[in-house]
Amino acid sequence: MSPEFDLIRRHFMRPTQHTRLAGGDDAALIEVSAGMELAISTDMLVAGTHFFADVEPYRLGWKTLAVNISDMAAMAAQPRWATLSLALPEVDDPWLEEFARGFYACADEFGVDLVGGDTTRGPLALNVQIMGEIPNGQALRRSGAQLGDEIWVSGRLGDAALALAAMQKRFSIREEQLETCRTSLELPQPRVALGLALRGIANSAIDISDGLLADLGHILKCSGLGAEIALPDIPRSALVDEYAASPTVVAMILGGGDDYELCFTAPADRHADISRVGQQIGLPLSHIGYITSGSSLLVRDRDQHLIDIKETGFDHFA
Amino acid sequence: MSPEFDLIRRHFMRPTQHTRLAGGDDAALIEVSAGMELAISTDMLVAGTHFFADVEPYRLGWKTLAVNISDMAAMAAQPRWATLSLALPEVDDPWLEEFARGFYACADEFGVDLVGGDTTRGPLALNVQIMGEIPNGQALRRSGAQLGDEIWVSGRLGDAALALAAMQKRFSIREEQLETCRTSLELPQPRVALGLALRGIANSAIDISDGLLADLGHILKCSGLGAEIALPDIPRSALVDEYAASPTVVAMILGGGDDYELCFTAPADRHADISRVGQQIGLPLSHIGYITSGSSLLVRDRDQHLIDIKETGFDHFA
Repeated sequence: MSPEFDLIRRHFMRPTQHTRLAGGDDAALIEVSAGMELAISTDMLVAGTHFFADVEPYRLGWKTLAVNISDMAAMAAQPRWATLSLALPEVDDPWLEEFARGFYACADEFGVDLVGGDTTRGPLALNVQIMGEIPNGQALRRSGAQLGDEIWVSGRLGDAALALAAMQKRFSIREEQLETCRTSLELPQPRVALGLALRGIANSAIDISDGLLADLGHILKCSGLGAEIALPDIPRSALVDEYAASPTVVAMILGGGDDYELCFTAPADRHADISRVGQQIGLPLSHIGYITSGSSLLVRDRDQHLIDIKETGFDHFA
Repeated sequence: MSPEFDLIRRHFMRPTQHTRLAGGDDAALIEVSAGMELAISTDMLVAGTHFFADVEPYRLGWKTLAVNISDMAAMAAQPRWATLSLALPEVDDPWLEEFARGFYACADEFGVDLVGGDTTRGPLALNVQIMGEIPNGQALRRSGAQLGDEIWVSGRLGDAALALAAMQKRFSIREEQLETCRTSLELPQPRVALGLALRGIANSAIDISDGLLADLGHILKCSGLGAEIALPDIPRSALVDEYAASPTVVAMILGGGDDYELCFTAPADRHADISRVGQQIGLPLSHIGYITSGSSLLVRDRDQHLIDIKETGFDHFA
């Protein structure tokens, strides 16, 4: 047995729930349920670009899978199977053990089977592909927004961006505050229950990975519509709110990525249904604006004045 | 539109054949045919480990997909869908155009839809996940070898390892010889037609990516059996044969990776069927030995003497 194979066996072989064959062959084998289509997404995380090389490996393992599961949530798909590719500078078993523990904590939480993977020597990089099931035709697509739809956001925005800015010494907060918002950055909670509950209610959805304006912008572009949102209605934590007089923090609320909340649109007559969903799953859902005709994305402050938005989100090649 | 998204649109958006939604949303959507299960595999390629950073991008694009399609061939699956993740030091459009041209040449040749992907800044690394369809229960697994099975190898082994050794100045060959064997290394041909034709005939299969002994060793380990093979019966090109007196080249034939031929086992009474398959698809298929009881892998030379095998294949963490 080669050391490479042994690495997989040591850290990434656990029983699966809904998989015919996982690991140890040229491919994994899965069976898709009748009447379902597959939703498929992939994300690559590179040290230095997406995470600090010295991040706690447990948290990195969680986040690597969580950001992919978040894409399933945004499509209203039930996450089911994932593959993992790891490029590692060296085989560091204690590090891998913690990474695997975080990865599987997330997999177990959301019922995902790890069905295959690849490991190689190289600069630290992680790639997950996720697959989920969704009844034919029920996916929530970015292109589905309708004129007059209400725009909603789950949870609270800005904590992850605030943590990142503080860790990069671009913004100063207190030590215990950093611990709080750093959890949002490093242990994001994919909104799977919300995505599933929005089937048949919402018209479009996306997860907020690049920032609210950038991601809502994707919905608008794909749907050929515009939007108007109200800054005071955008949900943020008490911590972020404490600093919300700072233009830097306003930019975090509007353009900061990594929160992995859902932004979705739905007809106004489903407002009560959506409020009920939020109560049922115990997640605040905030109505922040409306889909409009045209193609512009307007943001108003508490005095109804338009805010000049230049900071439209994180771009990996900006 | 962000530059990142634009990179995907510029180079990796083409019509798909059997995909409901590809690219531009949180996930792709596919429908698996009734009665089929999905075979899923992933491979990560890192500059410096799997390829030279200055390799022709067309060939890198081809190989990145081809090595994944090869895993489908080894399972007897029909390759269908792929995702691609790219970590790039910079956005180099001419390079990406050539990479995409090679990737799509391979995709078109084997009927694969690129359905999604991710791009990010980072040290050059590529990850493909491939998905293929196979009728329920018909996959060729590593664990299927039976006592008495004949062991077969497709094509010819050693060219890729010879090219790599020459490029790394570990072995000296003539310039025009390097051009020839380098094609095997950089433009491998996945044996999809062979894999499909072996459904119902072979008992087990694997693709030779790590070297014949290492990969046949995986079949033996998974099947709980041993094998005996004859060095003179292992197919090699005229070029490799020219140097076959060198122990280094014998090690290439037995242990050199990157040829992406198939090694498979089948009952002796299917010998004629397999010969017919080889003629039909125009690919030489060579019977190189037998599955035995026990767990050892023995190699005999032309005088029936046992060869001492230390070089058992390429290991990414060796």
